[in-house]
Amino acid sequence: MKVSVVERILSANDRLALENQTLLDAHGVLGVNLMASPGAGKTSLIEQTIDALQGCLCLGAVDGDIATSLDADRVAARGIPAVQINTGGSCHLDANMLKRALSDVPLDEIDLLLVENVGNLICPANFKLGTHFSAVIASIPEGDDKPYKYPPMYTGVDVLIINKIDLLPYLEFDLDYFSRGVEILNSGIVTFEVSCKTGEGIHAWADWLVEQVEAHTQASE
Amino acid sequence: MKVSVVERILSANDRLALENQTLLDAHGVLGVNLMASPGAGKTSLIEQTIDALQGCLCLGAVDGDIATSLDADRVAARGIPAVQINTGGSCHLDANMLKRALSDVPLDEIDLLLVENVGNLICPANFKLGTHFSAVIASIPEGDDKPYKYPPMYTGVDVLIINKIDLLPYLEFDLDYFSRGVEILNSGIVTFEVSCKTGEGIHAWADWLVEQVEAHTQASE
Repeated sequence: MKVSVVERILSANDRLALENQTLLDAHGVLGVNLMASPGAGKTSLIEQTIDALQGCLCLGAVDGDIATSLDADRVAARGIPAVQINTGGSCHLDANMLKRALSDVPLDEIDLLLVENVGNLICPANFKLGTHFSAVIASIPEGDDKPYKYPPMYTGVDVLIINKIDLLPYLEFDLDYFSRGVEILNSGIVTFEVSCKTGEGIHAWADWLVEQVEAHTQASE
Repeated sequence: MKVSVVERILSANDRLALENQTLLDAHGVLGVNLMASPGAGKTSLIEQTIDALQGCLCLGAVDGDIATSLDADRVAARGIPAVQINTGGSCHLDANMLKRALSDVPLDEIDLLLVENVGNLICPANFKLGTHFSAVIASIPEGDDKPYKYPPMYTGVDVLIINKIDLLPYLEFDLDYFSRGVEILNSGIVTFEVSCKTGEGIHAWADWLVEQVEAHTQASE
């Protein structure tokens, strides 16, 4: 009985996720779902991405949190449309939350929508939102064992962004051990090593986004 | 209808939590629930605490994770009884999981049980386990806005441990801003600033644990 209820919730979510993707496609918008632990750098990555893509792509953002609009405020301060979702305690975004937020996003004015999920390495992996890509941001200070300990998150994403690489000299982080864990779960995953503090590696990530937006636009035409 | 189901689950959990506390009391064991984001240093704090209390208190540990026994292996390598709970995907421990784990802990041989919750700043705050104290470990690299963004976790705990203070010189972390956020939610909370890497501050935390175990023993007699 319990299982069937869970299945129904997930299939309802999948249906709404498909509606979200159809809506994004109709407006020629590429959507990316950014997931990570609290403090791994989701908002900082969005800030850096906005700066790197200035004059090149028009961005919008949706920021999910259990409380406050601190993240959306930071993103909006960069001059792009940003909508805050407060989940009211829920530890992840779902497709219905994004659906409601999308009605406040000027989809005709943007090319790329960055969706910042709630800070959590577990539950967000279970709920499709209808974005075209999903990414996990790993943070060097979290330690090199995270792929082993949080496999569903690392298995289900399209992109891995390793953030805070400027802290490598000050921490014991075995990049080989980390990468072996990722490789077992998600062989050949697109990976970027970045520092949202120094800006290192951000352009490679931004260039990849531009390529994906162009490919998406061509496919929609 | 939805609310009443949730209420029933929580009240069933509270009943089991009370049973756990009664069991711990019967064996003169003090229980502490350690909660934090992934990679904030829960296992490292347990390792440091074991070392600091060697010859002074007998410890046991229960380690919760969605996958692997990496944490319990690290703790057991220090020579104390350690039981791993794999939650099978669930993002928090609950009282029933701890109840089952307690049957594998030699309660007559220990004074202090450290329970490492699943790495998550959200849901573990909603589920009492039956421990006498709960603590949140904040990690400097997570950023100084976490009390504002994850208020239920900071509101509900008895102890705050600020870890990775050795990284303060390399990061922008406004300790005053962080502390003001904590003060709003949980005025006067017992706080320790530590580095599980250098050992700084660990003895103050260990001394506090000894005091609590002694007070608990006297209250039980």
